[in-house]
Amino acid sequence: MAVKKKKKSYKASNLPPGTMAYRGKKQTLVTDIEIVNYNKDHYKIFNSNRVEDAFDFKGTDHVTWININGLNNIKDIETVGLHYDLHPLTLEDIVNTSQRPKIEEFENYLFVVFKMLFIKNDDNLHYEHVSLIVGEDYVLTFQEADGDVFNDLRERLSNAKGRIRTQGSDYLMYSIIDAVVDNYFTVIEAFGDKVEELESLLFQAKNIDDSTPGQIQNLKQEILKIRRSIYPLREVINRMEKIDCAFIEEKTHSYIRDLYDHIVQVSESVDLYREMIWSLMDMHMTVISNKMNEIMKVLTIIATIFIPLTFIAGIYGMNFKNIPELEAENGYYYLWGVMLMLFVLMLIYFRRKRWL
Amino acid sequence: MAVKKKKKSYKASNLPPGTMAYRGKKQTLVTDIEIVNYNKDHYKIFNSNRVEDAFDFKGTDHVTWININGLNNIKDIETVGLHYDLHPLTLEDIVNTSQRPKIEEFENYLFVVFKMLFIKNDDNLHYEHVSLIVGEDYVLTFQEADGDVFNDLRERLSNAKGRIRTQGSDYLMYSIIDAVVDNYFTVIEAFGDKVEELESLLFQAKNIDDSTPGQIQNLKQEILKIRRSIYPLREVINRMEKIDCAFIEEKTHSYIRDLYDHIVQVSESVDLYREMIWSLMDMHMTVISNKMNEIMKVLTIIATIFIPLTFIAGIYGMNFKNIPELEAENGYYYLWGVMLMLFVLMLIYFRRKRWL
Amino acid sequence: MAVKKKKKSYKASNLPPGTMAYRGKKQTLVTDIEIVNYNKDHYKIFNSNRVEDAFDFKGTDHVTWININGLNNIKDIETVGLHYDLHPLTLEDIVNTSQRPKIEEFENYLFVVFKMLFIKNDDNLHYEHVSLIVGEDYVLTFQEADGDVFNDLRERLSNAKGRIRTQGSDYLMYSIIDAVVDNYFTVIEAFGDKVEELESLLFQAKNIDDSTPGQIQNLKQEILKIRRSIYPLREVINRMEKIDCAFIEEKTHSYIRDLYDHIVQVSESVDLYREMIWSLMDMHMTVISNKMNEIMKVLTIIATIFIPLTFIAGIYGMNFKNIPELEAENGYYYLWGVMLMLFVLMLIYFRRKRWL
Amino acid sequence: MAVKKKKKSYKASNLPPGTMAYRGKKQTLVTDIEIVNYNKDHYKIFNSNRVEDAFDFKGTDHVTWININGLNNIKDIETVGLHYDLHPLTLEDIVNTSQRPKIEEFENYLFVVFKMLFIKNDDNLHYEHVSLIVGEDYVLTFQEADGDVFNDLRERLSNAKGRIRTQGSDYLMYSIIDAVVDNYFTVIEAFGDKVEELESLLFQAKNIDDSTPGQIQNLKQEILKIRRSIYPLREVINRMEKIDCAFIEEKTHSYIRDLYDHIVQVSESVDLYREMIWSLMDMHMTVISNKMNEIMKVLTIIATIFIPLTFIAGIYGMNFKNIPELEAENGYYYLWGVMLMLFVLMLIYFRRKRWL
Amino acid sequence: MAVKKKKKSYKASNLPPGTMAYRGKKQTLVTDIEIVNYNKDHYKIFNSNRVEDAFDFKGTDHVTWININGLNNIKDIETVGLHYDLHPLTLEDIVNTSQRPKIEEFENYLFVVFKMLFIKNDDNLHYEHVSLIVGEDYVLTFQEADGDVFNDLRERLSNAKGRIRTQGSDYLMYSIIDAVVDNYFTVIEAFGDKVEELESLLFQAKNIDDSTPGQIQNLKQEILKIRRSIYPLREVINRMEKIDCAFIEEKTHSYIRDLYDHIVQVSESVDLYREMIWSLMDMHMTVISNKMNEIMKVLTIIATIFIPLTFIAGIYGMNFKNIPELEAENGYYYLWGVMLMLFVLMLIYFRRKRWL
Repeated sequence: MAVKKKKKSYKASNLPPGTMAYRGKKQTLVTDIEIVNYNKDHYKIFNSNRVEDAFDFKGTDHVTWININGLNNIKDIETVGLHYDLHPLTLEDIVNTSQRPKIEEFENYLFVVFKMLFIKNDDNLHYEHVSLIVGEDYVLTFQEADGDVFNDLRERLSNAKGRIRTQGSDYLMYSIIDAVVDNYFTVIEAFGDKVEELESLLFQAKNIDDSTPGQIQNLKQEILKIRRSIYPLREVINRMEKIDCAFIEEKTHSYIRDLYDHIVQVSESVDLYREMIWSLMDMHMTVISNKMNEIMKVLTIIATIFIPLTFIAGIYGMNFKNIPELEAENGYYYLWGVMLMLFVLMLIYFRRKRWL
Repeated sequence: MAVKKKKKSYKASNLPPGTMAYRGKKQTLVTDIEIVNYNKDHYKIFNSNRVEDAFDFKGTDHVTWININGLNNIKDIETVGLHYDLHPLTLEDIVNTSQRPKIEEFENYLFVVFKMLFIKNDDNLHYEHVSLIVGEDYVLTFQEADGDVFNDLRERLSNAKGRIRTQGSDYLMYSIIDAVVDNYFTVIEAFGDKVEELESLLFQAKNIDDSTPGQIQNLKQEILKIRRSIYPLREVINRMEKIDCAFIEEKTHSYIRDLYDHIVQVSESVDLYREMIWSLMDMHMTVISNKMNEIMKVLTIIATIFIPLTFIAGIYGMNFKNIPELEAENGYYYLWGVMLMLFVLMLIYFRRKRWL
Repeated sequence: MAVKKKKKSYKASNLPPGTMAYRGKKQTLVTDIEIVNYNKDHYKIFNSNRVEDAFDFKGTDHVTWININGLNNIKDIETVGLHYDLHPLTLEDIVNTSQRPKIEEFENYLFVVFKMLFIKNDDNLHYEHVSLIVGEDYVLTFQEADGDVFNDLRERLSNAKGRIRTQGSDYLMYSIIDAVVDNYFTVIEAFGDKVEELESLLFQAKNIDDSTPGQIQNLKQEILKIRRSIYPLREVINRMEKIDCAFIEEKTHSYIRDLYDHIVQVSESVDLYREMIWSLMDMHMTVISNKMNEIMKVLTIIATIFIPLTFIAGIYGMNFKNIPELEAENGYYYLWGVMLMLFVLMLIYFRRKRWL
Repeated sequence: MAVKKKKKSYKASNLPPGTMAYRGKKQTLVTDIEIVNYNKDHYKIFNSNRVEDAFDFKGTDHVTWININGLNNIKDIETVGLHYDLHPLTLEDIVNTSQRPKIEEFENYLFVVFKMLFIKNDDNLHYEHVSLIVGEDYVLTFQEADGDVFNDLRERLSNAKGRIRTQGSDYLMYSIIDAVVDNYFTVIEAFGDKVEELESLLFQAKNIDDSTPGQIQNLKQEILKIRRSIYPLREVINRMEKIDCAFIEEKTHSYIRDLYDHIVQVSESVDLYREMIWSLMDMHMTVISNKMNEIMKVLTIIATIFIPLTFIAGIYGMNFKNIPELEAENGYYYLWGVMLMLFVLMLIYFRRKRWL
Repeated sequence: MAVKKKKKSYKASNLPPGTMAYRGKKQTLVTDIEIVNYNKDHYKIFNSNRVEDAFDFKGTDHVTWININGLNNIKDIETVGLHYDLHPLTLEDIVNTSQRPKIEEFENYLFVVFKMLFIKNDDNLHYEHVSLIVGEDYVLTFQEADGDVFNDLRERLSNAKGRIRTQGSDYLMYSIIDAVVDNYFTVIEAFGDKVEELESLLFQAKNIDDSTPGQIQNLKQEILKIRRSIYPLREVINRMEKIDCAFIEEKTHSYIRDLYDHIVQVSESVDLYREMIWSLMDMHMTVISNKMNEIMKVLTIIATIFIPLTFIAGIYGMNFKNIPELEAENGYYYLWGVMLMLFVLMLIYFRRKRWL
């Protein structure tokens, strides 16, 4: 699936650099814009579908957060770009959903790209390309579609007593990325459930069928995709901590350091599951080998018991003129005795070999 | 198990940063506080469940060690935080039991997080999240629950002639972490016993059953979890050695260097066992293959001996009108002779092949 | 194949350093030279087979792009080298098709070597050695043969309104390499299709035959070859970004940074496919093991059912004088009953074992 | 074995830091002390069991080498420590036989810990913990027990014309470590013999039995233990080369550089054998698979030949009223002809399959 | 083999440092010395077996290349060492054939050690230890035996018009090492042929026998040995490029940079073959598994067809009093019909399973 997406996303390659071309699969008819404006005493939130509505707040001493859902209306994004004086390459990266996480410093803003992972109601893992631009008194976020992980953050913003209301745009940026990273844990946890489920199935060596290697392979690819989405953010946050930028206050740095701790922890969990999945394949091979062993045992036990007995029966089915045993009065019954004895001896032998 | 814990610990994610939320599984009704106050001539120890009792000693020239058991009474920890002027993020990390080991320098204190591993009477390995704060003349430690590895340390403190009584809070910090690291050796040793036991079982190729791969898999996960608890402390101690901090005396640095030596040694042992466990899986596969070989051998020997003999018996069971052998006087006895000869030839053949 | 090429390319080793020796397999009779000359207002393109035609434009304030197809006419390349004052080692590298990607700074020009990968109409992947020299107002490119990935670029150049027309030779260099890197995506995508096709075959565990490991091995070698062509360019572009060179303008640097992002993304895709191919081999082994299991099951079921039954039939084929069952009126029918019962019991047993 | 030792060595953990506790297994009743005193013109060697005898030479312009065998007489070592003003941690490390190789600079001496590996007459590999202290005009060495690799060195010292007699204590230190490293080669060589022996057994695919994986596993652990003893010394010598220390002369540095070359070479050999041992396991699995193949072939050949023949014999053992073949005069002989023909066809088939 | 050599080479360990002890296997009776003296206008070459003949040219403004074949005549090498004022450790390294490649700067000369790999007429790969000393106006090379890769170089030297005649001793050093590195390509190419041959055998899955894993193992060891000879030179040349040395001219540096490019390319080829060989083992295991599968298939097909038929024949071989089928007129023919039908059904079943 990771591959499918990339494939589509490069149909439009060979465009001149700096050209905006939305390549994602999510289409929204109108760009949905959410505008939050706040300071210590004031808080306002409203939705709009005209980007121009967002610009009125620029220049005030309030912090303005403009959250734009939908990347296919390139016109709107260009309007924003013009208003906030964004570099053409920035605009290109905003709509290029295959752009990997990165951070870039520009003269008047900081540009951060990351992947938002979350599990919707359909229980599937969604990857959304999110761009964040932070300036002196504003934060812009661009998402592919509706639905995000910022509800707790919105609630905190609406709460007049929260620390966030007393802080600047840098703290808002931190809070947004923190919400994304916190949700990584939830995603990893859900993924871990799948891994453990499959593992416990393998432990019990039951319900193993031909689809199991395929399932393991799917988990492998899923974790590789998650890793590729999460890992680069580690480097991004590390660099963010070191950036010396006018509108990032000193005290925010300690929060970013804390964020870095979290992302390191997430990526270690990812690596842990990765190792676990890799060893699932070994487990599976062992389970198959054990099953084969069992099959062979059954065959060997049956064959080893009956082949000699059949041979004996064959002997006395021969038509030789002179076979004294055949003439004996109770020959048939003696024979059964001999056969039973042989049978019991075999059983003892298999017991000893621990095959039974 | 490692995974289970993480899962629970992230139920409460998406809280505002700096919020204290205890996520561990150990619950204590009242916070149990142990206070040790000492200098060269003086030594006092007492327990309390009121945190305020601990504050009387602050500011004296004695060293005060306040050891707090139980992280679920957030109120008490906040009181301590207020009294010692701790940063909100520090308080968050103290109660966040999934926080990985780290060290952080603050203006007036040093904050160290690590994992205490120890084997209780129930023979299980316990992981406890421990935070340590060291200031000019005090050391605070926060543990999840009762039970720790500091009994030897307490005894040394009570001994008036010990070196520790003449040293400051930095040496106490060193002694606490040293006790934790020393106990890692005991834990690794106990773990090594399990690995070696399983290995010697595999060597003898007996008692191997379907549960063996599961056991190996369990050891794999256990060692990965141990590694994740121990490894980051290596980096922490390395940084601790280099910190230039007012209340860490020069001579203590050589002790910390020694501590670093120990933690490196522990982590090398962990890696050694890790490699050993990984190769156990190979061993196991070989043992299974050998068993399969043996089963096949038995089958092949039985089949190879009796199938030709049964064929011969079949021949003389045919009802052809004119089979001269059947008419021979001692045909039956000659046949037995031929069959015996065949049997012996087969045995010789198998001997040569080293199958018998 | 990668190996074959190298083998041939080193027939002529042990030549004195700085000697030009074309070792590629593509031969063109006459060197085909394409000359593009442009500035904001002016644009001219023409083809020639005399290198001297290209020199007339030197020294004007226009940008001149001289694209030379065919490396086996060493004379022509020497003429160009003389005209543009190129170092002997540069000339040697231009015709040495086994030279790996690199960047070298000279006093008056920048020399970049890379591999152009593209899929021709024959659906095969072609590797072409391309050298690029950029000076104050000119760009020279040397290709092994006709056919390249620059058609979009040519179109943009011909378009009077494109940004490229207003920029210098450094931007042209960037555009050329960008076109090459963009095409890497197409190549990787096509390669990915092959990998996924084989993977889905393995998932369905059908059409697996003896040629499958060979196919996987081929993919392994192909991806290793692609990796060797692409990876070094990463380092090249990284160094290009840092080069402090008179004719690379500051604003072009941000484009090169963007290019670096792309090449990193390509190489991550390559690594992803590499891991996927490696795990295909595991998948294949599992599929084979599963097939073996199935074969063994069939054998075991047939043998386990019929061997005991055949034994019973053998018993009543014996010629003992006194076998009471044989004399029973309906003995034959009773026997069939017993045999059917045995048969059904066996089936139930196999059901339980999940073999049926 | 490596594990066993560690286990014992940590019985006494949790002692206060700086406490000397000998944990090795070698016990000597009296500490055996060897004292060598020399300069260009003078040479004296004598043994003693009173450490005080060694101190007379201190302060002269001669070089004194005091070699102490036996670490369990802690009293003696403490006396030495007092006399030469050694740090408590140094004394602790001298008797702590599980201390990994390291180098530490102190104000008035240099402290080096390493492992001496040598093969005694019993053909077993011995690991001995050696500490070396080098000061202005003396070298102290502490060994666990009698027996070392310094005999050649002693001879060179006794030879008045040797370079070593004209050099200071730094050159003696170099010579001692050089002797140890040189002996590593002998050890690795002997270990290599074992590896190659096992490998050639596997090559010939004979004498492979159930103990082989255990043997490979043993070699794995042995090489891991050797590696852990040797590898850290690499870093030690590297740091030694860079140490700027009053009593290490400039010209000695080039000898230490040479020593570093040697230790790098040793560790590369160790890695080479490590890789070889790891691939032995693969070899072994292949040998087992080949054996299984052979067993299966024998079974299949026998079964494939005789099962159809037995079927034919069964046909003519039937009691149908009307079987024309049975009535034919030479039916029996014709049947034999048919069977022989079948047999020959089978043989040809197996030949073609290269099974015979 | 690599191991054998090392083993012998360390018989003489424990010699005092700086002692020359030749440990190679190649013995020459007299040291063969080749002396080349040249400048732009002048060229002279002659052979001698007296080292003193080489010294006459010292001090002239010409470049003198003294190439000494045979390292077992230690006397001669000592004479050279005295004449050119070489360090004792340099002399030791010249004759120590197990010395790994390295570069060392001395006051008046540069000392380079590397391995010359070449394929002699006997088609075997030869490893020769070569030391090179370059001073102001001379180059000394020491080889183990006759035979080298410098014939092209000699020819270029004899050619009055070659660039090399106008350059100093630094360029001669570069040319010698360049010749060695160029020959690495030939060696790798020949090695690659062996790998590809074995690979194509495995692809065709024929001619696989018990010796195959041994062959793969041999290739593994060979490539590891080649790697150990070639890899360190990479670092050597990298350092050579950075050395700031009076007699290495600035313009030579760009040639050394080029040389570095070549050695990187060689080592990448080595790594490529290494990966290929490692995956050959996987290929081989798959081929074996496939063969086992085929064997099992044959057995299963034969057994599955004939076991039921034999059972039926057994049924009608029974001696029951009352078996109606036996009395039927055409019972025998009907039976054949039933058996044929069963046979055909089996074939259809196997077809469906793709076993036929």
